[in-house]
Amino acid sequence: MWHISEDDLESIAIGAGILGTGGGGNPYIGMLRARQMIRENGPVKVLSHNELHENDNIVCVGGIGAPTVGIEKVRDKQSYYALKAIEDFTGKKATAIISNEIGGSNSLEPIIPASLAGLPIVDADGMGRAYPEVQMKTYFVYGVPSYPMAVCDEKGNTALITEALDAKWVERMARAVTIQMGGVACYALAPMTAHQVQTTAVLDSLSLVKKLGDAVRNARTTHEDPIEALLDVHPGKVLFQGKIVDLDRQTTAGFARGQVVIEGMDQFESDKLTIEFQNENLIARLNSEIICIVPDLICIVDSERGEPITTELLRYGFRVTVLGFPGPDLWKTPEGLATAGPSAFGYDVEYSDLELT
Amino acid sequence: MWHISEDDLESIAIGAGILGTGGGGNPYIGMLRARQMIRENGPVKVLSHNELHENDNIVCVGGIGAPTVGIEKVRDKQSYYALKAIEDFTGKKATAIISNEIGGSNSLEPIIPASLAGLPIVDADGMGRAYPEVQMKTYFVYGVPSYPMAVCDEKGNTALITEALDAKWVERMARAVTIQMGGVACYALAPMTAHQVQTTAVLDSLSLVKKLGDAVRNARTTHEDPIEALLDVHPGKVLFQGKIVDLDRQTTAGFARGQVVIEGMDQFESDKLTIEFQNENLIARLNSEIICIVPDLICIVDSERGEPITTELLRYGFRVTVLGFPGPDLWKTPEGLATAGPSAFGYDVEYSDLELT
Repeated sequence: MWHISEDDLESIAIGAGILGTGGGGNPYIGMLRARQMIRENGPVKVLSHNELHENDNIVCVGGIGAPTVGIEKVRDKQSYYALKAIEDFTGKKATAIISNEIGGSNSLEPIIPASLAGLPIVDADGMGRAYPEVQMKTYFVYGVPSYPMAVCDEKGNTALITEALDAKWVERMARAVTIQMGGVACYALAPMTAHQVQTTAVLDSLSLVKKLGDAVRNARTTHEDPIEALLDVHPGKVLFQGKIVDLDRQTTAGFARGQVVIEGMDQFESDKLTIEFQNENLIARLNSEIICIVPDLICIVDSERGEPITTELLRYGFRVTVLGFPGPDLWKTPEGLATAGPSAFGYDVEYSDLELT
Repeated sequence: MWHISEDDLESIAIGAGILGTGGGGNPYIGMLRARQMIRENGPVKVLSHNELHENDNIVCVGGIGAPTVGIEKVRDKQSYYALKAIEDFTGKKATAIISNEIGGSNSLEPIIPASLAGLPIVDADGMGRAYPEVQMKTYFVYGVPSYPMAVCDEKGNTALITEALDAKWVERMARAVTIQMGGVACYALAPMTAHQVQTTAVLDSLSLVKKLGDAVRNARTTHEDPIEALLDVHPGKVLFQGKIVDLDRQTTAGFARGQVVIEGMDQFESDKLTIEFQNENLIARLNSEIICIVPDLICIVDSERGEPITTELLRYGFRVTVLGFPGPDLWKTPEGLATAGPSAFGYDVEYSDLELT
């Protein structure tokens, strides 16, 4: 058990920005929202998965929408409204909050309802990274029902999905409602038992992003290389270094889609890396060869400071380092790959593990 | 109190097709679905508004979607599923069913849940015609809350709108979900008391469409003019007669939108009537002069048989008579006109009563 302090937020935001692989919501804005909560209501308690009790009722919350919209239409307390809607619908109070995804601002989203409702957060999430669509959660892959789901906007509009053919249908309906709500909303779903969390979640991921952020911040203070500091904490590799020379990014059908082209520098001189994204980075091609693909993580960071650069902030001229990290094992099973592997995004490519050496 | 027999369905379908002003769902398909119910479960009881009891809980049901889709993707028992979802959410059983709109197949939609749940139908509706959007109901104009609403498809997908800024937000969310569901769905909403029905509904409208249909069928048998027979039963006028010479009809954003051009015959020779529609006929221009506009009714019928021709069945070459009927008084108040008058459809035109002489 530990507590998230105001100072921890900065580390979490950096680490979550890295594991967010471009998406999951802008971590800086997520940090500002979480900070306000902690200033008002004090630090938020974090429970390890093995500190949960048999009778716990753990509700998952998250933001939904395009990150390009999320930086203009900032979320407020919608995830708290969504939590209340799920509690009302199920007639059962939540005893803890869990994140939908540890990447981006969604790592911090649970702080809003947890702080307002006086509940702890579980040190785990449903992705171990970020993914663009609702059905892409380890919870659902391993048997947790994907409904009821509540989607709320800042105006008080509330839609509940109470039955669905499968999690992909939940995504379709929730996305359509989110677009009507202006392109960003928050949700609560999938009330879980302790056992369900322990067996279907990516565990200890909040601690991990904090550790990643601590490493980057520490390296900045001691003037060490933040990229090396990152890779010391979490196994991964430098995929590429260079300058952004082209960007095609469109906000369509509720997502930010497109690709970014990076021209190599130093040992990557005369090479070119192309990354395609749907909110999150999905596939990286060195010249024309695929060198990293979902569920493995493709993370773009500022080469100087190790600061993650999310999809909505990509811009021509940035000097960036592209990191690759192995995706969580829960995504590498046949069921995991079917839900969020290359084919789930329309890539006719067999997944093969990221080579770390 | 009366009962809807199998034979009555044909009359209701004709009358509802006429008051549907082009929309409300294909009445023939609605009739087939209702007939199956009545064959399986017997005639359905119809209560007059003054036969309702103080403690009644009257739930409104209807179809939603584009009529062009509705004839290809035929609805099944979705309105019954939606009724169940509303009963579950509110924790209160319905004691009677009421139609959302008397036009088109929606006049018959209540028969599905009423028959399956063994409930009576109320002889009234929320429009006295058909209108394309959810918020366009006299219920909501005169104070009935527009949520909770349940939207269901044939696969078991269920979305509930449990809170909304206003009825137009309910429409936005419901329409978005309906499009995801394939362009047609059914809904249940607005559980009402007897007093709410008595003060906000268009009353006796099911009896009226039956009477209209009876008149047309009777005229066919006796070889009288079905158009004259119609106008004897319900005050209205012939706006135009001619041949359809042009049709622009697109299914976009969940609606069938477009316009139909009719070239005059007989006393209308050398004139042209243009009707614009959004599921329903909205405005009729004789050459360039507006001669009928919402909330008044613009009804296209087959000149020979008085058979209503709905938006999805309009076709080049049809010989048609266009009838105009005054809209229900509840739509002619300032609140009514704001919700479903010319300005609600983007027409910068002051409403003026249809001249009957």
